[in-house]
Amino acid sequence: MPSKFAPLKNDTFLRALLRQPTEYTPVWLMRQAGRYLPEYKATRARAGSFLGLAKNPDYATEVTLQPIDRYALDASILFSDILTVPDAMGLGLYFTDGEGPKFAHPLRDEKSVMALEVPDMERLQYVFDAVTQIRQALNGRVPLIGFAGSPWTLACYMVEGAGSSDFRMVKAMLYDRPDLMHHILKTNAAATAAYLNAQIDAGAQAVMLFDSWGGALADGAYQTFSLYYMQEVIRQLKREKDGVRIPSIVFTKGGGLWLDQIADSGADALGLDWTVNLASARAQLADSVALQGNLDPAVLFAKPEQIRAEVQKSLASFGQHSKASGHVFNLGHGISQFTAPESVTVLVDAVHEYSRAFHV
Amino acid sequence: MPSKFAPLKNDTFLRALLRQPTEYTPVWLMRQAGRYLPEYKATRARAGSFLGLAKNPDYATEVTLQPIDRYALDASILFSDILTVPDAMGLGLYFTDGEGPKFAHPLRDEKSVMALEVPDMERLQYVFDAVTQIRQALNGRVPLIGFAGSPWTLACYMVEGAGSSDFRMVKAMLYDRPDLMHHILKTNAAATAAYLNAQIDAGAQAVMLFDSWGGALADGAYQTFSLYYMQEVIRQLKREKDGVRIPSIVFTKGGGLWLDQIADSGADALGLDWTVNLASARAQLADSVALQGNLDPAVLFAKPEQIRAEVQKSLASFGQHSKASGHVFNLGHGISQFTAPESVTVLVDAVHEYSRAFHV
Repeated sequence: MPSKFAPLKNDTFLRALLRQPTEYTPVWLMRQAGRYLPEYKATRARAGSFLGLAKNPDYATEVTLQPIDRYALDASILFSDILTVPDAMGLGLYFTDGEGPKFAHPLRDEKSVMALEVPDMERLQYVFDAVTQIRQALNGRVPLIGFAGSPWTLACYMVEGAGSSDFRMVKAMLYDRPDLMHHILKTNAAATAAYLNAQIDAGAQAVMLFDSWGGALADGAYQTFSLYYMQEVIRQLKREKDGVRIPSIVFTKGGGLWLDQIADSGADALGLDWTVNLASARAQLADSVALQGNLDPAVLFAKPEQIRAEVQKSLASFGQHSKASGHVFNLGHGISQFTAPESVTVLVDAVHEYSRAFHV
Repeated sequence: MPSKFAPLKNDTFLRALLRQPTEYTPVWLMRQAGRYLPEYKATRARAGSFLGLAKNPDYATEVTLQPIDRYALDASILFSDILTVPDAMGLGLYFTDGEGPKFAHPLRDEKSVMALEVPDMERLQYVFDAVTQIRQALNGRVPLIGFAGSPWTLACYMVEGAGSSDFRMVKAMLYDRPDLMHHILKTNAAATAAYLNAQIDAGAQAVMLFDSWGGALADGAYQTFSLYYMQEVIRQLKREKDGVRIPSIVFTKGGGLWLDQIADSGADALGLDWTVNLASARAQLADSVALQGNLDPAVLFAKPEQIRAEVQKSLASFGQHSKASGHVFNLGHGISQFTAPESVTVLVDAVHEYSRAFHV
């Protein structure tokens, strides 16, 4: 069945994820629609709050397109939040200014954990509506990425009830009551797979799993409590839509020591943070997956010459492309709200300009 | 010249650092003198403040000995703070309740950076007095570890003026004004070497460099801005005192991807955090250095059986000792203030009991 959407004019990003030849290295930035952009701040002010913005498909479409209008980016990503899923499970997501997300009903005892269920996807219809509307608004300019949090990363917020620096409560549950932790993770994995598949049905052309807190786990615990459940999600993902492959990306921040195991997860591409040496990672994985990353977002605080030099160093570290290699340029984490918008122009243009020499 | 201190009754820790045979795996815990102990809280209340405690050799001696009196630990560590050095440089260290350390005069411009100098070690005499007094009070029970922050980790606090989650200001300086950053790091390295050597003269029997924030750096930046300056410190360290070797330990939290390079730093032992697989690290480094670590402090929130099982797993991961291997059991980070004191008894006793089978 042919797609109801306009044909794609720039599929460089999708080809790179599938390790097909490209003319240059495609680039997008995590959190590219965000507070460093004055136009984002204006929309956010009209929406009244972060959730007012994220839950309204018109606003979500508007801010998703803003960086695409401003920069020569090769991919767009749905404007949303990973915590929409536990919110739909009834945990009561809310945001306090300057303190980040919180849950009104965190999972702190056996009763609340055992009551957890995969939510009806209708409660997340506003996300799928946004995906379809963004895809229509993009009109084929670049592909649209859908995303979700990893089961473990969601569990961190669900048990702690907020962000944490030491993950004391969620790790206490992991070591003291692994049975409860597995129940949460199993539920999260089923919900996440359903959520991403619904995004694919709504128009997402690639999907990404954000395992923001996998790197907080001990070796051994990471494999059991994060990676295993991400594999469960990937296993259940739709592989194609309207006859077109839907690539998947897995990103464990701080997961550089486990790249070989993450590469076996079934994902098409691995996100890398800036602690990883691109040349070493590529050699270790022998081009069996595409790599996405990994510039330190702090590089964008430097002068244009320095930004260009760091882009060049990064591209040279990945090295000359072969028939089966794939690299998507990105930061190693979300862009800082303190970034000057013009520094992103320098970065994106440098990636496009310098990378052609590595794709001949 | 013979030492003026009592002979050491338990040198297991020092032998393990030097990869000499031991009968069991020695154990100590980072931040073992601290808020999880009711006796520490009582002393701290009498001292009135953290700095009132750390700057008074009597109080520092009292709290350093508390965990040694309570547990069968194989090493003690000076009670102090890594920020004593920038405090002596004139940055004005102070503590606010619940927010951690702050500097009244952070390094934010070229003028303040270029005015930075290695402080007169007399300003840190209270630290050296504490070292001597603790060593006397220990009376040879276990060795005393001296310590300092790494040049980069000190720079993080000196530029940010406080702890940070994104190190925005210090990294902006690193990428935008590397000349200023190198001036800070060079000064810090010279100060740190003098500081550790004075601790050795005062009675420290091993020294440890805490690179708490090296893992926040990008690959490449880590080698240039953290590891290089730690090597400078180690190069200048006194190798022995009164004819006895003074082993050195380097710990970069989040440095698991760079172990081979850290092992070349000249340190006798590497501290490891819990993301590192002990078996892999040992195989990679081929017993060229001793390893210290690396249990997740959150394991101490579990039941005794579970703590014992995790200790056993960790010891088995390091594996059977050879003639040239060395392992010091520790956590992968400081012990949490929320730990039950009796859980530490379980851990220490399990290390001693289970490790003998690996040392035959």
